Amino acid sequence: MVDLLPLVDHHCHGVVRERLDRAAFESLLCEAAAPGRWHGRLFDTQVGFAVRRLCAPVLGLEAHAAPDEYLDRRAELGVDEVTRRLLAAAGIAEFLVDTGFLQGALTTPDELAAFSGGAAHEVVRLESVAEDVISGHNAAAFAPTCRARLVAASRTAIAFKSIAAYRVGLGLEADRPSDAAVFTAAARWSAEVAAGKPVRLHDETLVRFLIWTAVDLGLPIQFHVGLGDADTDLHRADPLLLMPLLRATADRNVPIMLLHNYPFHRHAGYLAQVFDHVFVDVGLALQNVGGGGAARVLAELLELAPIGSVLFSTDGCGLPELFHVAAVRFRRALAVVLDAESAEGNWSRADARRAARMIAGGNAHRAYRLGPSAPPTD
Amino acid sequence: MVDLLPLVDHHCHGVVRERLDRAAFESLLCEAAAPGRWHGRLFDTQVGFAVRRLCAPVLGLEAHAAPDEYLDRRAELGVDEVTRRLLAAAGIAEFLVDTGFLQGALTTPDELAAFSGGAAHEVVRLESVAEDVISGHNAAAFAPTCRARLVAASRTAIAFKSIAAYRVGLGLEADRPSDAAVFTAAARWSAEVAAGKPVRLHDETLVRFLIWTAVDLGLPIQFHVGLGDADTDLHRADPLLLMPLLRATADRNVPIMLLHNYPFHRHAGYLAQVFDHVFVDVGLALQNVGGGGAARVLAELLELAPIGSVLFSTDGCGLPELFHVAAVRFRRALAVVLDAESAEGNWSRADARRAARMIAGGNAHRAYRLGPSAPPTD
Amino acid sequence: MVDLLPLVDHHCHGVVRERLDRAAFESLLCEAAAPGRWHGRLFDTQVGFAVRRLCAPVLGLEAHAAPDEYLDRRAELGVDEVTRRLLAAAGIAEFLVDTGFLQGALTTPDELAAFSGGAAHEVVRLESVAEDVISGHNAAAFAPTCRARLVAASRTAIAFKSIAAYRVGLGLEADRPSDAAVFTAAARWSAEVAAGKPVRLHDETLVRFLIWTAVDLGLPIQFHVGLGDADTDLHRADPLLLMPLLRATADRNVPIMLLHNYPFHRHAGYLAQVFDHVFVDVGLALQNVGGGGAARVLAELLELAPIGSVLFSTDGCGLPELFHVAAVRFRRALAVVLDAESAEGNWSRADARRAARMIAGGNAHRAYRLGPSAPPTD
Repeated sequence: MVDLLPLVDHHCHGVVRERLDRAAFESLLCEAAAPGRWHGRLFDTQVGFAVRRLCAPVLGLEAHAAPDEYLDRRAELGVDEVTRRLLAAAGIAEFLVDTGFLQGALTTPDELAAFSGGAAHEVVRLESVAEDVISGHNAAAFAPTCRARLVAASRTAIAFKSIAAYRVGLGLEADRPSDAAVFTAAARWSAEVAAGKPVRLHDETLVRFLIWTAVDLGLPIQFHVGLGDADTDLHRADPLLLMPLLRATADRNVPIMLLHNYPFHRHAGYLAQVFDHVFVDVGLALQNVGGGGAARVLAELLELAPIGSVLFSTDGCGLPELFHVAAVRFRRALAVVLDAESAEGNWSRADARRAARMIAGGNAHRAYRLGPSAPPTD
Repeated sequence: MVDLLPLVDHHCHGVVRERLDRAAFESLLCEAAAPGRWHGRLFDTQVGFAVRRLCAPVLGLEAHAAPDEYLDRRAELGVDEVTRRLLAAAGIAEFLVDTGFLQGALTTPDELAAFSGGAAHEVVRLESVAEDVISGHNAAAFAPTCRARLVAASRTAIAFKSIAAYRVGLGLEADRPSDAAVFTAAARWSAEVAAGKPVRLHDETLVRFLIWTAVDLGLPIQFHVGLGDADTDLHRADPLLLMPLLRATADRNVPIMLLHNYPFHRHAGYLAQVFDHVFVDVGLALQNVGGGGAARVLAELLELAPIGSVLFSTDGCGLPELFHVAAVRFRRALAVVLDAESAEGNWSRADARRAARMIAGGNAHRAYRLGPSAPPTD
Repeated sequence: MVDLLPLVDHHCHGVVRERLDRAAFESLLCEAAAPGRWHGRLFDTQVGFAVRRLCAPVLGLEAHAAPDEYLDRRAELGVDEVTRRLLAAAGIAEFLVDTGFLQGALTTPDELAAFSGGAAHEVVRLESVAEDVISGHNAAAFAPTCRARLVAASRTAIAFKSIAAYRVGLGLEADRPSDAAVFTAAARWSAEVAAGKPVRLHDETLVRFLIWTAVDLGLPIQFHVGLGDADTDLHRADPLLLMPLLRATADRNVPIMLLHNYPFHRHAGYLAQVFDHVFVDVGLALQNVGGGGAARVLAELLELAPIGSVLFSTDGCGLPELFHVAAVRFRRALAVVLDAESAEGNWSRADARRAARMIAGGNAHRAYRLGPSAPPTD
């Protein structure tokens, strides 16, 4: 039953349309930047095994095909055909696409959705907007220009996203910063940019300004939480650090989406229980932790997280393989967890089916106001 | 065999004797304050499923009865009959009851015990004593009055409890504060109270003063650790932060009880291994994490915690359902963990039975000096 | 198949050759300093059950022999015979032995290896070298003498080790300290030692000086991470705190070995994924967490850690029992994890066998340049 549910992927990126050599392919497989001299090939990871197991048959190969055989077949079919096959097999009906990362190198939301006949919605990355604004405006114009850009974005985008975890950590102050504080911080940043430093937002006040501006606009706000590449200071990406901000936004009618969360997914489950406006997933993790790991991690999230708070995402980026592996592993993990509770008699079968529908897409429909959904009623 | 063991619930609260409407019932189910607009009904949580599964049959309904059906039947039977049935079914022989929370709204220890024919003991909350004292005394009288109250309490209470985690976090200094420091802090607090601020202890020095005063009196001291409601800063409730205080109290012959601990229960297990005076439980968590989750969480606690250090508690509060669910889930989880180790041949059956008796009540009898117990000898 | 693999124990200590009474034996069993009045005997721990289950038969007793029976038999056979039997049964081919702890009380690397016919290599503890140097040299001579000692050690040792986690925590600055900073810190420490304080390195600058000196010499560097005795501040032993140093050393061609890691082993797995020069194990944990726990903990490490980054260690110290229990539990856990992934079809059997060989010893051979190894190729 879970195999047939259309999924809402509430957080992903586009895919690369160029042909990739083996090193480039491996560098997009997991959070390692590239294969190195010590660990050997990156196919020797859970996600590497999963690609060979799950994607090879979709391309017409035996399961567990060797890496070079897989890449040869991939080249033979061409990236578009590979993407079409893998996205179709994933069974994802809607994609919410973060367009603020690797712009230009990845497909647009519409291109992505076209591969599978699904629908696409844009998620606007707050820090990218600010970085674009600071490059072309003086400090005095920074705040109003950002505000205007976000207002405009809110008319077409489905949500905002913050990568505060990467830049300043999640230990944000709770309050909206004053106009004076924003101006001072913008002036400092503007001076750095004028002096030739890379245009990279890493100021806590400005990040907070962006978040509160987004809160005013009423769209859901996604936060990168937990694992990412070596650029994250992972101990500053613990969602518990967000508690002051979550308290401050609890009555603002704005859903806050905590993405990934691993290895802090139990912390995220706790937050989803005590804050009604918090939604959680274990995206990115599920395709990376192996088959047994996926069921374990999802089960751990479902310890405390209310059924109505759990979402599906792939965080697929670059490789269409990641969407397919994420979807298969998510479906399998969800079935394992629900079957176990049903088999023990802890949940009724009807409750299990209803929970599956909510997690696969109903909750996302409700939180993002995506239209027809399965509401969490009796 | 585990099903027949009488349990010592070493940490709980009283129950509400008034009839509850659905919103009030849901608001007592888990750590969420109340159902909200985003997640839907709070019956869609592991503890919600568990109440429908485990408590409905005790009230004469089918397992998995719908929420409204359950609440109708609850109203029909009346709260006293419901409480009697659920507490009797729980098989708890002794209740150690924290009387410092929602005083007046909940049953007293004796009332609670009367429902099930068990015995009750009072646990005195340190912060509540201090809050009572500061309201009626000047700063100079604060310390001696607190001391006198705690001395008096120690004649009848079975233990003390601190909610430092909620107020100042567990990163307490190790040392006993000086009289001068206590006076200064009391004077500051007294002035705040006089100025009309809510009477709420949130001063690290005064919390530490209370703890050391309790240490002098020789009773076990319980600490809230890990999950609680949105009022906890969960990242300050990690038991590892207590290490300096645990080192400072290691030779004082006073057991320190770490309550709940989830999601830091592996940290708690470590502390129980390296400090002989530390006892641990996963109360509150077990009824909240589902059937599979309960076995997993207890197993994780038992990775490092010596058998002689593990206790049972419900943290039942408000709803008698929580006592019943906690007891059933605890027995089942313990049986699963012990059966798995026995079936693999890792533990002898005799060791498993002995461990079950210790964890169900023998350790609590020894630590709280509750009278006849199963001592941890060969 | 896993049962027959020769193991490389990349982190251990020597064993005690004197006869031990029961209290002394229990005090070496786990991380508790000694049995105390509250928890009862330390045989009531997972490692205590494991010794009775796994070691008793090697000494000719029934499995689950009572503690006193076990210790009587141990005395009857004599420590050398017991050590010979247990180390031979462990199937460890190579021992990398930290010689900086309890020097004099434990066997040397060659003595240890002689018991089992294996090979031994010395690991030099950086802090022990510095403590030896500060005792006999003035502050000006400290840095050059340390450097010279480490250069000399690098000619015979297989690796260096730091116990920064015990002394200053893992939140180290990333940079190599200046000569002036090292001189100032050495002068302060030298003055403390001259004033009669115990010779114990607990200065962050000097620890960092030692680490960077070791980096220059190109040998792998081991770090104590995660659980240890009550002397560790466990929350400062989270491997995520090492991220700045790991970034700073990523291009230095020096493998960094994160030892133990529990309960932060998922954090360690993340670091192994994003840093090619990071290797990880769950040594010390596996013998302490029970049979079910060992499989769970190893599975959690293997969620993110690339196959090429995972090592085996016992952290055996004092008791030969710990080597045997660690080896049996490791083999069993590895078999359980690989069988589960193979049975589900997630990994091919050939991939599982190859992964087992890499983790049991191939990765250690490559990282420590131990000679013939199974390279991680197709």
